[in-house]
Amino acid sequence: MKKIYVNELNNYIDKEIEFSGFIDTIRDKKWVMFVILRDSTGKVQMTIEKSEEQNKELLEIMNDITVESTVKITGKLTKNEAVKLGGIELIPTKIEVTSKALNLPFDYNNLEGVNIDTRLDYRWIDLRNEKNMLIRQIESTMVQAMREYLYQNDFTEIHTPKLIGAASESGSEVFEVKYFDRKAYLAQSPQFYKQMAMAAGMSKIFEVAPAFRAENSNTNRHATEFTSFDLEFSYIDSYEDVMDLEEDLLIAGLSKVKEKYGEKIKEVFDKEVIIPTKPFPRIKLKDLYQELHERYDFEIPTEDIGDMNAEAEKLTYKFALEKYNSEFIFIVGYAATKRPFYHMRNEDGVLQGYDLIWRGTEITSGAQREHRYDELVKNANEKGLKEDVKFYLEFFKYGCPPHGGFAIGIDRLTMLLLGLTIKNAQFIFRGPNRLDP
Amino acid sequence: MKKIYVNELNNYIDKEIEFSGFIDTIRDKKWVMFVILRDSTGKVQMTIEKSEEQNKELLEIMNDITVESTVKITGKLTKNEAVKLGGIELIPTKIEVTSKALNLPFDYNNLEGVNIDTRLDYRWIDLRNEKNMLIRQIESTMVQAMREYLYQNDFTEIHTPKLIGAASESGSEVFEVKYFDRKAYLAQSPQFYKQMAMAAGMSKIFEVAPAFRAENSNTNRHATEFTSFDLEFSYIDSYEDVMDLEEDLLIAGLSKVKEKYGEKIKEVFDKEVIIPTKPFPRIKLKDLYQELHERYDFEIPTEDIGDMNAEAEKLTYKFALEKYNSEFIFIVGYAATKRPFYHMRNEDGVLQGYDLIWRGTEITSGAQREHRYDELVKNANEKGLKEDVKFYLEFFKYGCPPHGGFAIGIDRLTMLLLGLTIKNAQFIFRGPNRLDP
Repeated sequence: MKKIYVNELNNYIDKEIEFSGFIDTIRDKKWVMFVILRDSTGKVQMTIEKSEEQNKELLEIMNDITVESTVKITGKLTKNEAVKLGGIELIPTKIEVTSKALNLPFDYNNLEGVNIDTRLDYRWIDLRNEKNMLIRQIESTMVQAMREYLYQNDFTEIHTPKLIGAASESGSEVFEVKYFDRKAYLAQSPQFYKQMAMAAGMSKIFEVAPAFRAENSNTNRHATEFTSFDLEFSYIDSYEDVMDLEEDLLIAGLSKVKEKYGEKIKEVFDKEVIIPTKPFPRIKLKDLYQELHERYDFEIPTEDIGDMNAEAEKLTYKFALEKYNSEFIFIVGYAATKRPFYHMRNEDGVLQGYDLIWRGTEITSGAQREHRYDELVKNANEKGLKEDVKFYLEFFKYGCPPHGGFAIGIDRLTMLLLGLTIKNAQFIFRGPNRLDP
Repeated sequence: MKKIYVNELNNYIDKEIEFSGFIDTIRDKKWVMFVILRDSTGKVQMTIEKSEEQNKELLEIMNDITVESTVKITGKLTKNEAVKLGGIELIPTKIEVTSKALNLPFDYNNLEGVNIDTRLDYRWIDLRNEKNMLIRQIESTMVQAMREYLYQNDFTEIHTPKLIGAASESGSEVFEVKYFDRKAYLAQSPQFYKQMAMAAGMSKIFEVAPAFRAENSNTNRHATEFTSFDLEFSYIDSYEDVMDLEEDLLIAGLSKVKEKYGEKIKEVFDKEVIIPTKPFPRIKLKDLYQELHERYDFEIPTEDIGDMNAEAEKLTYKFALEKYNSEFIFIVGYAATKRPFYHMRNEDGVLQGYDLIWRGTEITSGAQREHRYDELVKNANEKGLKEDVKFYLEFFKYGCPPHGGFAIGIDRLTMLLLGLTIKNAQFIFRGPNRLDP
């Protein structure tokens, strides 16, 4: 029999139904017991009159039960204007206990005093919190809308291998795997394989999949494993085409989220979902440095020249709001020395890539890629990359159209959308000290 | 400027356009050069008259170019009934070579004599084959339709960690990862985390993600890494509910594939896409043994009693076609000893799980899961599982609704749909001896 959810109950008034859920709370009064039942869509009240003879057995079951246990109720759903929860109540004739809960280690409705590590240790209890449940639904909706945008634009979804034979992009941050009698590594990104698809002539591809970074850093925005929304497409004229598509993609995602959860996000997270308008502001790094200097007396440290740092990102957000009234801002004109070898440079050596800053944090790096074999080899050599990228360079020997793409960390997107830390934004956080549960 | 694809060219007749693509073939006649250009949607002819003075420079470029190079053409699109390819031709005024191809290591249009390992070594060239390109599009469409079915039924997409702290389900087949100063493992399936979501009260979840198996076996249907379509949902009455949902999911996926690619699949793969009807036939293992014995004189080997093997799967397909005229058949009543400890058994010890056979191969294992802590501990002990499942058993101490689910290997689904080997069905195959490219 198909489960009836709380948000469907209005279709069953005055009907005999079965209802399953968690026991949310029990209010045991002198003459009556009120039991609040919960499923993933809401809560409903079950009322047991103590004076009624036929309820004796039900009350015995209820006296023995703990909150957070799960039950399956048979009963009649009736209207009762006095009931706060939707003006309906369930009058049970049968209660079956489907699982019995021990005392919970903490009150998930009130997480303020609870240590984040305790919460992560018991993530399945932490997730019962309404806010945490909502985070998952919002992220799912965002990704759904972004995928739909790509399907509508004839993108093909691919699934690239995460086990790779060479340490690739930057050896230091790659996890090593024992692979039978040899070593394998975990892919930091699907970059090389996205580009392989371009060399194959696939034109427009995307992937949503885990990416792995062996960074031993404990910040509020880094994880050793995260979900990356990656895409790549061919026949572009410049990285402007890539930025253009990213604008559309984010507008599609945010519009759907606003439509479905905008009010709820305001209410629960106190955040406004703002749909950006095209084009997002775009600024050259050197012009940005000057703006940040003039406005906020900020100087980029010598070691970061040609690049950004966390403080610069924060101030850039402030600047974007002030000057453009925009939460998003593209930065272009990074130094080639600060960027991967596969980002294209133009004849003057200017990097054909960008970063996108949203609410003070970088959410994407995108670029036109270097598709010309000779140029790519030159760039790789400059970075001292040899053996590890050899297989990748082969992709470009047999014809490959101009192409570009970008990646968005969806956990980070969720984090910024709702104002969270990464530990709260991920379904299950992974960091240097966190492999459990 | 947005790329114009071959399948959009009819909107640009008699217009000046830019067209980018691969050089597919060059037919150099005495008076004219015919160049076939290709993108991911089709092919178009470019015609260069040799007698015309203004074409001299274009011909010089074309004489220097190799097939499979990529170009960007400026020219006029005109109707010409004599042209076989859609009755249109492109008359160029400008040719820009965007990448130059070396001689290809093999002819991807004629793969019959080419060793599969050579093909996989040069997978980006192998994928240029029309059939291989089509495989990718069909798989993407199938997964899209299956996801859409789940979104419509209020499922939430989750992203579970692939790096796990314990070797979990069965230690022998798990890849080991160097994780800073300790060991981690690669998840063989998201099983434990899907169930964690159930304990959290998430009700309906799914995930499409890589799964890893350290099996040192080289068959036509196994890979060390593959893409798993996983789902789990709560408040079921029995595993019949799980089978029921799987039927709907597969019908949704196959219907969309048939609608979009049915004709093409018949033409290119010589396969009929057959939409099954509900309910798929269901048979108990012991009744199936008897049928296979009576019909095909088949005896299950002693070591496989209570389970299936490859030959039994093949004969079961034959039987399903003969008796039920169905390509699909569910088998129930497996021995608990042959199944994971988290599959539920009823009061009589009968396993509450199933396998689904399609076209002679198992494509799913599904089950109602054991959600009761005490029973689960008993089952785990029976299998000799202790430390590695300790974290998982915790999920069931604090209330967990009855639930079930299944997993489908989408590479295997694609393989059976189109009649391929797994090496051809995966975007990039991974096996014990194959980590490249």
